[in-house]
Amino acid sequence: MLLAMDVGGTSSRAVLVDRTGRCGGYGASGGGNPVSWGPDLAGDAIAEAVTLALAQAGPVPVAGTAIFAMAGGSSFLTADAVRAQLRRRGVHCAVRIVPDLLATFCAGTPRLAGYALVAGTGSAAIRVGRGRVVASADGLGWLLGDAGSGFWIGHRAVRAAMAGMEGRGPATALTGLLLDRMGVARGGRSVDGRPAALRVAVEELYRRRPVELAGFAALAFEAAGVGEAADATVAADPVASEILRAATERLLQTLRTVRIGGVGGPVVLGGGVARRLPGLAAAIAADMPGPGGAGEVITVPDGVLGAAVLALRHDGLRVDRAMFDRLAGGLAALR
Amino acid sequence: MLLAMDVGGTSSRAVLVDRTGRCGGYGASGGGNPVSWGPDLAGDAIAEAVTLALAQAGPVPVAGTAIFAMAGGSSFLTADAVRAQLRRRGVHCAVRIVPDLLATFCAGTPRLAGYALVAGTGSAAIRVGRGRVVASADGLGWLLGDAGSGFWIGHRAVRAAMAGMEGRGPATALTGLLLDRMGVARGGRSVDGRPAALRVAVEELYRRRPVELAGFAALAFEAAGVGEAADATVAADPVASEILRAATERLLQTLRTVRIGGVGGPVVLGGGVARRLPGLAAAIAADMPGPGGAGEVITVPDGVLGAAVLALRHDGLRVDRAMFDRLAGGLAALR
Repeated sequence: MLLAMDVGGTSSRAVLVDRTGRCGGYGASGGGNPVSWGPDLAGDAIAEAVTLALAQAGPVPVAGTAIFAMAGGSSFLTADAVRAQLRRRGVHCAVRIVPDLLATFCAGTPRLAGYALVAGTGSAAIRVGRGRVVASADGLGWLLGDAGSGFWIGHRAVRAAMAGMEGRGPATALTGLLLDRMGVARGGRSVDGRPAALRVAVEELYRRRPVELAGFAALAFEAAGVGEAADATVAADPVASEILRAATERLLQTLRTVRIGGVGGPVVLGGGVARRLPGLAAAIAADMPGPGGAGEVITVPDGVLGAAVLALRHDGLRVDRAMFDRLAGGLAALR
Repeated sequence: MLLAMDVGGTSSRAVLVDRTGRCGGYGASGGGNPVSWGPDLAGDAIAEAVTLALAQAGPVPVAGTAIFAMAGGSSFLTADAVRAQLRRRGVHCAVRIVPDLLATFCAGTPRLAGYALVAGTGSAAIRVGRGRVVASADGLGWLLGDAGSGFWIGHRAVRAAMAGMEGRGPATALTGLLLDRMGVARGGRSVDGRPAALRVAVEELYRRRPVELAGFAALAFEAAGVGEAADATVAADPVASEILRAATERLLQTLRTVRIGGVGGPVVLGGGVARRLPGLAAAIAADMPGPGGAGEVITVPDGVLGAAVLALRHDGLRVDRAMFDRLAGGLAALR
């Protein structure tokens, strides 16, 4: 069996596949991205998912090269460190780390050229040619880039909530949603003309890690009336709607940056924010027309199927449409 | 003698004044803001400036209540902690911490009502009534507010430099200025279609504290051709000019938030960014007309004169125009 794993910021997944494309075992665990969680916790998450997959597959030997898809690549967690982690679990194999966006692309299509756009906590786009990453845009992290990402939306939502509370910006439903989410009481004594709720919220937010603002992206979706929990009888908040519109525009721009005229698609979309942004998939399809009209846009839940595709290819196998569909079906049955 | 001190993020100043408004000693030291530097370094900066002021004043007793103007107020460094710090230097007096923006206001005018707007690393505005802060806007720090501040400008300048390098945003002179400032070489091998210089710059910037991006505000001023070093033969960079224009608009908005119709001014401007932003003072004067046309806008270098005014007032003295001018003249002679 070949081992493949998709190591994400908030969750991770491992799968074991044989050389016919049959899935033998699957395991999921928590966030394993070493950039977000540090190498130790990342190692734990990797070990947990691999152990679960091996338990489901039964006593099978793991051969070939294990493929680990993760953001930030080998500069944070080396293939050697992952190999040592696997050895402690009794798994002896070579390890190769690949870009998470390449696994996203390969989770959506068996084709060897096209694009992937991911927007979760962070955001980035790639162009794929001959099965490899040939161009990248953004993915520069919460402070320097990740335009249109969960952090980007959450950061803007929180800033808009506070500007609205002070009257520096327009009044917005985001203010009430933020105070409710944080459990901050209204009222209380103002100091120097500054409301008590504002001071409490500000001090509490500075005690957290900045990247945790990504969690408040949900407030923008809620205030804009987007998603399952949306109440159709409540008017969408214009401030929140504008944040989501701007995020969609930024993500389109990131994708355009890696686009070249001759390569038409498909575009594989990954990440919770990309899935939830209303109209993003349609805008991409309209923006990057395919041969028969609108371009093909494929949404994937994560990159573990793509990691399995890359493991089979690295082993010298050709993953055609039939094998891709067999892999996808087997994985769906296991999880 | 009464002791007064202005404790800033990058520099601090102490002054000793007698009850006639005569300045007896002055001392300057490094950043003493406990929010930025932690209580220990803040204590050192306070001790250094006070020691220098006492050395210049000669052997005089310090009486009354010492006034310490600082951002963040007593939630980060208490009056008790400052008093203990002073006691170690042989200074025994009561201590009162006042908002840094109130000292800014009092450094510009002996009047008891008006406004102060500060834009340095951070930004905030207050309305003053009967000599006290009666309304505040922004000052929420680099992550949650400080719209139009040095951090706000520097953050946008760095993000625009990177977007320009990738082609996600318009090409801008900020890219070259950033790489030069950081000493990052052009060229080098691309990985996954990402230029080596971009990767090096990103990794280096994430090794610093986020607030250090404020230092790159200078790049925006340089690219926009603003300031003494500007080369009039080089066209202003439109991306940098737009960042400065937006910063000016945000600062005007922060000031408008605390404005009420009946209180006309004056507006006291403080902080390096407020001083350098082209047209900010003129825009404020036009935005807040005084009785005879444009409103009165006064620019001050720091808040130490205001802290001295507040120390005299706290001692029960009336600081009229004559005493204010005597204080200002004495301080100018000492530094």
